[in-house]
Order: sequence, then structure tokens, then C-alpha cells
Amino acid sequence: MAKKFINAISPTRTEDYPEWYQQVIKASDIAETSAVRGCMVIKPWGYALWENIVRELDDMFKETGVKNAYFPLFIPLNFLEKEAAHVEGFAKECAVVTHHRLSQTSSGTLVPDGKLQEPLIVRPTSETIIGESFSRWISSYRDLPVLINQWANVVRWEMRTRLFLRTSEFLWQEGHTAHSTADEAIVRTRLMLDVYAKLLEEFLAIPVICGQKTPSERFPGAIDTLCVEAMMQDRKALQAGTSHFLGQNFAQASNIKYQSDQEIEEYAWTTSWGVSTRLIGGLIMTHSDDDGLVLPPKVASAHVVIMPIIKKDKDRMQVTEYTETLKKELQDQHYNGRPLTVELDTRNVGSKNWDWIKKGVPIRVEVGPRDIAENAVFVGRRDQSPKARQSISRDQFVKNISNMLEDIQKELFRNAEKFRTENTFDIDTKTDFYNFFTAKDEKTIHGGFARSFWCGSAECEEIIKKDLAVTIRCIPFDMNDEQGKCICCDKTGTGRVIFSKSY
Amino acid sequence: MAKKFINAISPTRTEDYPEWYQQVIKASDIAETSAVRGCMVIKPWGYALWENIVRELDDMFKETGVKNAYFPLFIPLNFLEKEAAHVEGFAKECAVVTHHRLSQTSSGTLVPDGKLQEPLIVRPTSETIIGESFSRWISSYRDLPVLINQWANVVRWEMRTRLFLRTSEFLWQEGHTAHSTADEAIVRTRLMLDVYAKLLEEFLAIPVICGQKTPSERFPGAIDTLCVEAMMQDRKALQAGTSHFLGQNFAQASNIKYQSDQEIEEYAWTTSWGVSTRLIGGLIMTHSDDDGLVLPPKVASAHVVIMPIIKKDKDRMQVTEYTETLKKELQDQHYNGRPLTVELDTRNVGSKNWDWIKKGVPIRVEVGPRDIAENAVFVGRRDQSPKARQSISRDQFVKNISNMLEDIQKELFRNAEKFRTENTFDIDTKTDFYNFFTAKDEKTIHGGFARSFWCGSAECEEIIKKDLAVTIRCIPFDMNDEQGKCICCDKTGTGRVIFSKSY
Repeated sequence: MAKKFINAISPTRTEDYPEWYQQVIKASDIAETSAVRGCMVIKPWGYALWENIVRELDDMFKETGVKNAYFPLFIPLNFLEKEAAHVEGFAKECAVVTHHRLSQTSSGTLVPDGKLQEPLIVRPTSETIIGESFSRWISSYRDLPVLINQWANVVRWEMRTRLFLRTSEFLWQEGHTAHSTADEAIVRTRLMLDVYAKLLEEFLAIPVICGQKTPSERFPGAIDTLCVEAMMQDRKALQAGTSHFLGQNFAQASNIKYQSDQEIEEYAWTTSWGVSTRLIGGLIMTHSDDDGLVLPPKVASAHVVIMPIIKKDKDRMQVTEYTETLKKELQDQHYNGRPLTVELDTRNVGSKNWDWIKKGVPIRVEVGPRDIAENAVFVGRRDQSPKARQSISRDQFVKNISNMLEDIQKELFRNAEKFRTENTFDIDTKTDFYNFFTAKDEKTIHGGFARSFWCGSAECEEIIKKDLAVTIRCIPFDMNDEQGKCICCDKTGTGRVIFSKSY
Repeated sequence: MAKKFINAISPTRTEDYPEWYQQVIKASDIAETSAVRGCMVIKPWGYALWENIVRELDDMFKETGVKNAYFPLFIPLNFLEKEAAHVEGFAKECAVVTHHRLSQTSSGTLVPDGKLQEPLIVRPTSETIIGESFSRWISSYRDLPVLINQWANVVRWEMRTRLFLRTSEFLWQEGHTAHSTADEAIVRTRLMLDVYAKLLEEFLAIPVICGQKTPSERFPGAIDTLCVEAMMQDRKALQAGTSHFLGQNFAQASNIKYQSDQEIEEYAWTTSWGVSTRLIGGLIMTHSDDDGLVLPPKVASAHVVIMPIIKKDKDRMQVTEYTETLKKELQDQHYNGRPLTVELDTRNVGSKNWDWIKKGVPIRVEVGPRDIAENAVFVGRRDQSPKARQSISRDQFVKNISNMLEDIQKELFRNAEKFRTENTFDIDTKTDFYNFFTAKDEKTIHGGFARSFWCGSAECEEIIKKDLAVTIRCIPFDMNDEQGKCICCDKTGTGRVIFSKSY
């Protein structure tokens, strides 16, 4: 009992982080691997989380003037060839449709038939196919800017997959915009990164560092890639979202031209930006603990679960009535501008409380005959120890629940921020740097974020990547002009960049 | 001028209905064909319409206890083979993924590489892949019912495509449920059809006939297929949604078993049900007119457009301020439980009013200096003639706008219902029946719905289909037990069924 109470997920994070991650997903019932290689099934408790993320993000996009649209799943092979860097980056591992029919052989088995004249690629990203539409939509400066977002599934044939973090098919949004000036496109690139930072920090309670990728880490075909980077509990970085300034590269590839107010024909300036179901992987690795999933209230699949405790049949009616009324009362409360989502778990199983701890619901409420006698509820918060449950007067609880949710939301952010601060170091010598990323403490956890100087050369990045599997996660926007020696070659660099192992 | 005023879409419905349909789509800017054969691009004004449909439907699903989830895009070939009727129905025309890589040849062109051991099918529908999950999720009667819905894209390789009505890729929802008794599954099948009927009648303002398909028109692998059928303005039927009772067929194919409360192992009873972007095609063909798209307020991409009329520069500031304030005031109004969506069209082009008529926005408001002087607005309703615009006091207009929207919503439904009634006939002789479907009036429009008797034989259906391209759209639920001679063979049939040409 004591053992189980301390540790609902086995192995724990310190015992085996990657396996802990898989077990949290299993125990919380949010997703599973499927019969199709690398593709996952997102189960209802996980999909509700995604729906909440989508809703918040979609509202924020629309506030900036973006409109949703939908483009084809398939991309003609020749489209990919149009942008040289892009084909290099995306053509390698993708699903290729070569036939449009199945025929039954004489033995009854099905075989591909109806060979296509030109193979189709299942979109790994949609710059090229959306560019084709933009080239028809845009002819004058008056048509600009075009601000489009698409919610879609994409496929990248990953060799080693992990639920949410890296799957062959995943769900995402991809924004694509076209502008008449480089400046306007650059402002939009940054604006959308700020939207991502807001989503992560305010809704997912994940602190992020906003910055710029180095040239070698850019999106294939981009002039500039901005990113939000978060620290996971194994101290590795997760790239949670990217926003790309594409210059005129894709406009040239897709022939997106407009006539300026000077009546001169110009190529448009474009951007693209995206986040995916990978965010859920980041959410798990930021907040979850050795008892399972921990959900920030603003995106939680449900805010609160009510668990009637009925041990004797004579109590059934009273407890049932009481909890159903409580459910209705809670549904009338609001948090984050929306009515609360309330689960009522009437199952008669002993594991109820632990099941909901593992599922990460922010607030658990147990109600038995004794609580009812006192007009009280027995409340557990997911950000606190499973033992820390306390009895609260029912009226007080209902009245204060939105404050309690906000308290949990803030606490999760504070904890994550504290963890990141504690694991971020200014490192100034190559020896310290190599030690930081190779020394293993007793828990075999990696170093964290190293804030170090870099001379700006791709060669130094390459050496560090090869030696340590460490990359520059970003050149932070808030970097100052302090100068120091490159962590690799001793040349001078300006401002500290973020080095880390990463997902 | 007079010509243009009467007829913004060319050709008109009576001149060339199929071409009129394409031109309405083009003029309203809701979608376009793409560079990928049979796939469409849904443009922002069309996608907003779809988003509204999704939201209403999703809310209704959730009210019945359904939860959303997401399953893989790809289906292993052998899954399709599991259900004999299903493979027959769906394996024929589908997108087949055979490779997972592209390689560059020495001449630089890309060719498929990395051949898959087993081809993957891009889902034409997901019974088989979802069944595989259900077989793992369900082991006891306590796990039932399982009530799942998926919002997804699907692909059916159509030879002849038409925007929204029949495209190779389309967006839809597919619900899949599993139950411990046939009765419960049958009740669910009907419940979801009722949800579709509600969506169509109350939100899309499309009157429907609810009923049952004949055996030859069932979903491949289903025991029973229920449907909602609507009449388009060319008097053809559109199948707008279907709900299938699958019996234990797919449970057997996918091995979905549960242990009953008697501890006996049983196959589950399953259902599936879906509607798609085809609904938008139905919406267009029900309400739109020779001036373009007509959108029912409850799902309209926007409820109202404000058009500032500025002819002299000196009026600019006043008119701009007035219309921006009006916009905010209107956005504070509610219709159908949500804040109004308001467009403000500040373009300085003469076609503004007609552009919005063609886009089908329910209410148009023009505001110029003269209106402001009278504190009035000049209002046009899309359900009325473009000439029928009238001046209304601004305060009155804002106060009453939700009533006006509801009035338009109801008027569209009434008109559609009237049209259907006028074009539905009880037909009792074979001669009349053949005349009804072959005689062309001066406008070359087809007959409509024939309510006739049918003996129940597939042979008679086949003859009529071959002779007239007419099918039984449904056996209506509200059929009475009147008896009469089969329209084809003279044997006795009970109750009149709906015969029609269809999309």
C-alpha cells in the first residue's frame, strides 16, 4: 500500500524517463499505438485536451485577422521539386500514393491497380500546395496580406516514433501568409511566435524561451526560423512551435506575384508557422509526475471529477442525489470564460481515486454519507500530494472552485519555471561544457540548458552536435550584447545562446 | 444594368443547373478546384460555413454522450479484406500508398523508393481501423457502450467529381459505437439520424425525409441504413446523411467481443454514421438563387456586412467612425446563443453590394452621410429581392437584428419546404411514373419526388434504375399501411416509398 501510494507509475521518472513517459500515456488513457506503423490513436481523454488547445489557439489566430481554409491532402510530386532546399528537407521520408485502385487477383487477394501517371505525396507540410492557390488568389497589392491557417493531418515517415513526440501521422495547424513587404512578413512571423508563447505559458503552463534558430537549424527553404523552446523534466529541450520567414523563396517557387501600387510586378513575401500534437508530449513531460498525468486547468480534458462513495445500499439514493446536484452546480461555474467540465464517476471500483490521479484531472471530489452529513466535500488537488486531501464545506468549495483552478494553473507554471531556472547555467569553458553534458549524476539525468557563447560558425555547431548530441536550441530574443569566447573554438561571440540536448 | 440586376449568376438555374451551381461557388468564393485531381480547396468563406456546421453538430453529438477521438489516416490492406461486403464497396477506388520515400535519380528527378511490405490505403471510411481499437478497448459488458466520433478527411477515388458533392478527398465526421444488445444499437442508429435531421432542418434550413434505405442501397456491410433525403432545386434528391446499424458484421470482422453479465462471450453490436462537406453542396442547391449563394443565418459565415458609402473625402471620418461603432454594437448582439459575426467592407469599389449578395450574407447594411444624418441604416435581406432594401432607424435595427435573422432562417426553411411539397406527387401507374421522370417541361427540369408503391423486390428497383436512373431514396419512417400496386410489376406493396433521381 505505502509503495503504491508513493508511486502509481512504474518506472518513475528517475528510474527510466522514456519508459515513464510511455507509462503515463498508458495509465492516463490518452493515446495508444495503432496497427499502422508509427501512427497513433488519440483516445477521448487525450483528444479532449487537443480540442481545448485547438480552441484557444484558433481564437487567438482569428484575433490577429487569420482565417481558416482547407487544402488538399495530396501534393503532386513535381510541386515538391520546386523549392530546392524544401525537397531536400521533406521529400526523403514521406508516404507516396502510386495507385488509385485495388483489384482482386484470381486467388482473392487485393493488389494495387490503376497506376497514377504522377505519384502523389501525402502532405508533410503544405507550403507548395498552398503556394499554388496563393499564386491564383493574389494579383494586386490590394489582395495582400493573405492570412490563412489550416487545421490538418500531415505525414512524415519517421523511422523511430514515440507517441505525440514523433509520429508518422500527426495533427497540427499550419499558418501561411503572404505580404507585400519583407517588413510586414517579418512582423507577422514574430507575431505568430508570440501567439505560441502565450498559448504555452498562459494555457499549457509551460515556460518557454523565444528566439531564433541558427541557419543550420532552419526550416528547409526559410530565411529565418523563430521558435519557442521548453525544458522537459529530463532537462532536455523540446521545440514546441516554429514560425518561419520564408522571404521570397516560396513565392518564386510557386509564382506568387502581385502588382505593386507603383504598378511593378513583385514576388510576395511569405511566412509559415505551426504547432502540432507534439504539444501534448511537451505538456506531459513538463507537468506529469510519478503518479501520472497532470493537466493544467485551462486545457484539462475535464476540470473536476466527482466520485460518489457508496458502501451501503441504503446510502445510494442520498449520495446519488447529492452528487448529481453538485455536478449541476459546478457546471454552472465558470473558469477561463467557459462553464466547468465535470465528470461524475459512478463506477463501483476501489481504484477510482487513483484512476483520476493518473488521468491528471485538476480537482477530485469524493462524497460519501459522512461528507453529506456535514454538507462538506473531500477534495484533492492534482498539484498536491495524493495524501493532501481535505474536507471543505460544499458551499465554500463551489463558490471558490474557479479560484482553486487558477491557483493550480499558476502553481504548475511556477514549478516548471523553477525547474528550468534550477537547470539553466552560464557555462564559459569547453571543459565545463563537455562535463555538463556528459557527466551523469546518480540519477543519470542530462545537464540542462547551457547559456554559452558561440562564434556563429556552423562548424562549431557541427562539432558539438557530433561530440555531445547537443545543439543550439535558439538565439534568445532577450540576449544582451555581452561578449565571450565561443564554447567550441575560442573566437569571440556576442550574447549567450541556449545549448541543450533535445527531442 | 437591368439585366445584371435581375441575374448576377450566369447561367441561371433554369438555363443550366449544373453550371449555375459551379458559378455560384465561384461567385461566392467558397471553394475552388485544386491542382490535385478531384481534390478541392475550401476557401475561408466556405470553411467558416463548415466550422459553424461542425460546432453545432459536435455540440449535439456530445449531448448524446459521444466523445471525439482520432484514428490513423492509413488502413493496412488486409484490414479491408476482413469484411466481405465492405471490401467490395470500398476497395475499388481508393488511394494506395506503396512507398515511404522519394529518391533522386542521377538526372535529378524524384522517384518512389522504400517499398512498403504491405500497401496502405488512405481511409475511405474507418470501420475497420476503428474496429481494431474497439477490439482492444472492449472486454466486458461494463465497457459498453463505446460512443466515439471522429472529425477527419477521407479519400474515395471518384472518377467524376463536383465541388462539395463528390470530391476525391472530403471532410466529414464518422461516428462509431459498440453496444451489448442489438436493440441498444438500433436505438443509437435512429438517435443519430434524428441529430442529422435536426441539423438539417433547424440549422441548414433544409427540410428532410427520414427513412430507411432498401437493401440494395445499404452501406456495404450494414444490416440497415437510415438516411435523411432532401430535395434540391432541380428536383433531384440529395442523400444528406446516413446512419448504419451494422449488426455483428464488423464486430466479427474486427473481433470486438465482450463478456456479458452472464459471463458469456458475445460479439458487440455496432453502428456507424456520418455527414460530410457534401452538406454544403446541399445547402447551395436548396437556398441559392440566380444572384448567388444564400446562407441560412444559423450557419452563415457572417451574419451581417456593413458597407460604408464614402463618395467625398470630407465624409470619410464621420462615416468610418459611425460604421465602426455600429460594428461593435452589432457584435454585442446575439443570435442562436452566440455573438453576431460582422464584416465591415471598407473597400472603395462599386461592386460591394453585389459582391455580398453573391456571397450570401443574410443581412447587408449600407451607411452613407445621408443615413447618418437621419441616424438610419439602409438594409437589404438576402431572402428578399436585391431591390427591396429599406431605411431603418439605427437603434431599431440593432435592437431587432436577431429577430430579423430568425425571420430569414424561418423564411428559407418555409420556401424550401414549399418547393418540396409542390414537387412531390403520389404516382400510381407505370405510365404516369415513366412520364414523370422522362417528360421535360420547357425548362428541362426533372420530375421531383414520386411517392409510389413498391413490391419489395430488388429486380423492380433495378429495372427502374436502368430505365430512368431513378432509385428509391428511402422508405419513410412516417409511411402508413396503405396498400397499392408496385409501380413496376403490379404486385402489392405496402406504403408509399420515395422515388427520385439523385446526386
